[in-house]
Amino acid sequence: MLHLAAETRPTWITEAMGALDLILLDHAHCEKKAASQALNLIFRYGDDAGLAEPLAALAQEELAHFRLVLGLLEARGLAYGRLEPSPYAERLLKSVRRAEPDRKLDLLLCSALIEARSCERMKLLSENLPDPELAQFYKSLLASEARHFSTYVDLAADRFGRAAVVARLDVLALAEAAALAEPGPAPRMHA
Amino acid sequence: MLHLAAETRPTWITEAMGALDLILLDHAHCEKKAASQALNLIFRYGDDAGLAEPLAALAQEELAHFRLVLGLLEARGLAYGRLEPSPYAERLLKSVRRAEPDRKLDLLLCSALIEARSCERMKLLSENLPDPELAQFYKSLLASEARHFSTYVDLAADRFGRAAVVARLDVLALAEAAALAEPGPAPRMHA
Repeated sequence: MLHLAAETRPTWITEAMGALDLILLDHAHCEKKAASQALNLIFRYGDDAGLAEPLAALAQEELAHFRLVLGLLEARGLAYGRLEPSPYAERLLKSVRRAEPDRKLDLLLCSALIEARSCERMKLLSENLPDPELAQFYKSLLASEARHFSTYVDLAADRFGRAAVVARLDVLALAEAAALAEPGPAPRMHA
Repeated sequence: MLHLAAETRPTWITEAMGALDLILLDHAHCEKKAASQALNLIFRYGDDAGLAEPLAALAQEELAHFRLVLGLLEARGLAYGRLEPSPYAERLLKSVRRAEPDRKLDLLLCSALIEARSCERMKLLSENLPDPELAQFYKSLLASEARHFSTYVDLAADRFGRAAVVARLDVLALAEAAALAEPGPAPRMHA
């Protein structure tokens, strides 16, 4: 359903649980970047009125999650601050075609795939974290991530047709899996 | 209280009421830009943990207002789309000093002044619009704008001290009034 080409490697959850402080901090940055990316699409496609409302709602929700993660960091005595990002998103975005309207389709679908990967990773966290509060937190978020995946896919399908979207998702999902497999700082939500 | 160096010229409200469709559309763009500006500050000052939470809350609220204005446009049969922006903010930001930490102080205070001007303009709209629904809408928003002004000023005062903030506000408020007085597309929320 999430259209991912490859499942997360079995070792990721062990890595993540072994450096949970880092995962939480990275998660905060991911929510912030997701809000920013949605807002960027509203700016870039200012003549597409139908994007503005659903993407503003999505950005609002990402900001709400960002604030929740900031609260979690604070409650655990962890500092919020800069963190070397995973090059995952940058790598994935290299697959975005430059000419419009291909670019628009690809940007929507790359955002969809990033949400899909977040959802898959949060499911792993919710199922494996021994801390019940944190496990419940990730369980509550993963439903939003799945919904955001659908929002992006549906916006793309409204504009390009379902068949074109599925065909392009097949291609970009391979790029997403490849971006995830390349080396980089670890552990991260997307690494 | 809003620390503006000059009141809005008396003709602005007449211009605004004579092209209310344009003002509403421009207002939508202003809310979107305010959200983006707050998010940009969170990114730029990623090592200042104390900025992240209040600015994320502010950005969330700007997005909520953006969606309210989109709803108003739709209810009135007005299309959301691109609009030539007022060069106001770009002009004002020319007064931002380049070296840190001056840059940070100036960026916070320029955001404060833009919120202050929005508040003053929305007050004029709330007091003069004959449509009671729209007048009430602006009345409800102007309190948020005043609060956002205070948020930015307080964040600046926490970091630079109240005296330095007031001194710099005096200077930047003059730049703000000058930016408003220069010619540009009209009417706009900030023109």
